[in-house]
Amino acid sequence: MSSSPAAPDDAVRACVEERRAAFLDDLVEWLRIPSVSADPSHADDLARSAAWLADKLAGTGFPVAEVWETPGAPAVFAEWPSDDPGAPTVLVYGHHDVQPAVIADGWHSDPFAPEERDGRLYARGAADDKGQVFMHTLGVRAHLAATGRSAPAVNLKLLVEGEEESGSPHFPDLVRKTADRLRCDVAIVSDTGMWSAETPTVCTGMRGLTDCQIDLYGPDQDIHSGSFGGAVPNPAAEAARLVARLHDENHRVALPGFYDGVVELSEEERQLFAELPFDEETWLRTAHSHAVSGESGYTTLERIWARPTAEVNGIGGGYQGPGGKTVIPSSAQLKLSFRLVAGQDAEKVQQSVREWVSQSLPDGIRHEITFWGATRPCLTPLGHPALRAVVRSMERAFGKRVRFTREGGSGPAADLQDALEVPVLFLGISVPSDGWHSPNEKVELELLTKGAEAAACLWSDLAENWRPEPEGAV
Amino acid sequence: MSSSPAAPDDAVRACVEERRAAFLDDLVEWLRIPSVSADPSHADDLARSAAWLADKLAGTGFPVAEVWETPGAPAVFAEWPSDDPGAPTVLVYGHHDVQPAVIADGWHSDPFAPEERDGRLYARGAADDKGQVFMHTLGVRAHLAATGRSAPAVNLKLLVEGEEESGSPHFPDLVRKTADRLRCDVAIVSDTGMWSAETPTVCTGMRGLTDCQIDLYGPDQDIHSGSFGGAVPNPAAEAARLVARLHDENHRVALPGFYDGVVELSEEERQLFAELPFDEETWLRTAHSHAVSGESGYTTLERIWARPTAEVNGIGGGYQGPGGKTVIPSSAQLKLSFRLVAGQDAEKVQQSVREWVSQSLPDGIRHEITFWGATRPCLTPLGHPALRAVVRSMERAFGKRVRFTREGGSGPAADLQDALEVPVLFLGISVPSDGWHSPNEKVELELLTKGAEAAACLWSDLAENWRPEPEGAV
Repeated sequence: MSSSPAAPDDAVRACVEERRAAFLDDLVEWLRIPSVSADPSHADDLARSAAWLADKLAGTGFPVAEVWETPGAPAVFAEWPSDDPGAPTVLVYGHHDVQPAVIADGWHSDPFAPEERDGRLYARGAADDKGQVFMHTLGVRAHLAATGRSAPAVNLKLLVEGEEESGSPHFPDLVRKTADRLRCDVAIVSDTGMWSAETPTVCTGMRGLTDCQIDLYGPDQDIHSGSFGGAVPNPAAEAARLVARLHDENHRVALPGFYDGVVELSEEERQLFAELPFDEETWLRTAHSHAVSGESGYTTLERIWARPTAEVNGIGGGYQGPGGKTVIPSSAQLKLSFRLVAGQDAEKVQQSVREWVSQSLPDGIRHEITFWGATRPCLTPLGHPALRAVVRSMERAFGKRVRFTREGGSGPAADLQDALEVPVLFLGISVPSDGWHSPNEKVELELLTKGAEAAACLWSDLAENWRPEPEGAV
Repeated sequence: MSSSPAAPDDAVRACVEERRAAFLDDLVEWLRIPSVSADPSHADDLARSAAWLADKLAGTGFPVAEVWETPGAPAVFAEWPSDDPGAPTVLVYGHHDVQPAVIADGWHSDPFAPEERDGRLYARGAADDKGQVFMHTLGVRAHLAATGRSAPAVNLKLLVEGEEESGSPHFPDLVRKTADRLRCDVAIVSDTGMWSAETPTVCTGMRGLTDCQIDLYGPDQDIHSGSFGGAVPNPAAEAARLVARLHDENHRVALPGFYDGVVELSEEERQLFAELPFDEETWLRTAHSHAVSGESGYTTLERIWARPTAEVNGIGGGYQGPGGKTVIPSSAQLKLSFRLVAGQDAEKVQQSVREWVSQSLPDGIRHEITFWGATRPCLTPLGHPALRAVVRSMERAFGKRVRFTREGGSGPAADLQDALEVPVLFLGISVPSDGWHSPNEKVELELLTKGAEAAACLWSDLAENWRPEPEGAV
């Protein structure tokens, strides 16, 4: 995009530096709230988290900062209109809910008692996504300080949802119902990562997601595997057989129709991915894994960025305590997730799973399927002019060329794209070692402040260099 | 065997009736001790259970009643020599350990606070096996009362082990080391059941058992299924694939060599089984199940009594809490059990499992296998003269023709057979609805007292009608 990155703005940097300590104190306070959306017992924490954020956004200067209730966890909306009547409108998206975490999972410190060690802040949500949401409070203040403005150069809106880690079940509805207030020219998602601290990148797409729980019921209670074994169906074995049938021998997902409509990678994209400094050993360390494995005919980056998957997130049934217990379990449970790519339809995948499960189970095994939600896949055109502004701003903050990636994870970016009919861009500074969804999640503090600098530059750049298409032409 | 059952002995019955209340009070006391051998935290309870039983056997009149320590849970040995120098020697086998049980599994009352309801005693171990062990204290007193003897008509020995529910890991050693004191002409196992209260039966064989835990390890910690999904092996999926490969499409166990040496059913045995009043609906209710399913070409009774099996007793891995959590789990666990029939060798099956698991797992998945133990299968010849004495005694107690079954469950009967070189017979009064290993295990009190009557008759019958083969000719 730009072969000679502009220097970062001294005034931006000075403001970020000045406000850094107070910014971190506030972030730590927010990270102490265990806003786990998967667990209904944390409903109060989600409410506290939303109220806390709305309060801080008002304190940052946003004239509008509201908690928006949903049938699930509340979202937060904030708005800071530009004093330039012709300014473009930008909607920043993030989320304030986090993945479940308990110290017994292998954390070195309490996931909800943030600890700063070696320039990193360790806490559940540090990178995914509270850190990257809160980055924008620092960014907008630096933008104002550097430009001497009393209001941003763009009309800045912020939407921070509370159910992203649960598949955003109420987000599409929320966006549809509030579309008037969310109206914007571009959406910026701050819920993704970069290649590494040394190789800053801009993400151009996210996989979609639909995940479910399948409960299988066999005997009405656990029964003796000697007295009855070999003569009745076993729900744990049937759960296992479902999983085994999910993939073929080439590690392709074997659900009927699963690949229908999948947008294949272009040769250009494959080439761009291949140019990234990918080292399998390093990547495996980041993945805490000991071998690569996946769909035949694709590289590791292609597999995680551009190919749909089916994964077992959890399986359980029967006796799991110490020693042995010779029972046929009465029930078993599967948690499956499907990552989707552009061209796939989550509802069709769900329907295919339902039919496939119904057809796969033998007599004597009842089942229930609960889908937790669906997040659509999303892909931004590489040549979009607003994307060039993001790249320039990142290059100013990081002082080097910015490359392209995609994101294997999922976010509700596509819901914004669909409901608001706007392009979706990504501004994220997390790195793979941040441990999203894992024990010892952290954020690199230097990257977090560079992200704030990039945001500060981006509002000026978009206002100066980008004129959105007339309404209706997108 | 006998088409005109002899009437039960009035004196036996009178004694059983007189002692019934005190007998039940004692049994309830014993059942309060949670002697769960699978869980190391219950070691003290196993010691208490053994000491309690030795004390009660001494109180019953056994001149010898000892706790025998093992490297695991202790056993109890008792001996009451006959005053007839030519009397045969009988060794009764049972166990005082029980399966795990917690009220949350679906018990209507605390599994370790026995409750009598409608002529049934509900408690973990009521039928399996404390009730059937303790039955012999009532039986021997009735035998003495009815015969007017001060010592039994047979040399009566009792061996009650403490690790049966954990696969009897130290039992073969114990039997070998104490073979001199256990020396006998016949072993009687009281750890099996009957067809039903209405159709009393004698069991002629038990399946063997070997069970194991397989731990699979993938990533060093749970990782994000979006960031890494589709590109690394998933231990929960691999655990499921192992389970799925355990059986072929005909529900036959697909482990290499599994069926080598299996003694097939004779046409006579198939005919005898087919004559039992088997009703699939009734059996399914007893099994708390909703369909039959199993190895092609065999009936349900053949499947559970005479065919070897592989079952999943437990499976676990990844997130099992409420809602979804999009991780690739770091580990998964399988608990598998294999029921074995005459002709199979547990060690060969274990070796086959080890090799099969090693060959089945992909790069990047480490594993560990722990076998909990091995119990050999056992089969008693239908025409054995001592078996006729058992049948006659049962017919006297129950007042009707006694038929034959086998037992799908497993016990260390074969260890006695091998180490002591004696025939093994079965005297059991449990019925399938007793719920062995399940919530709400119970024993039918009327059957328990009839069992005591049968034992009382059996000691007289064996002494009168059976001369064991000279030593070494068995």
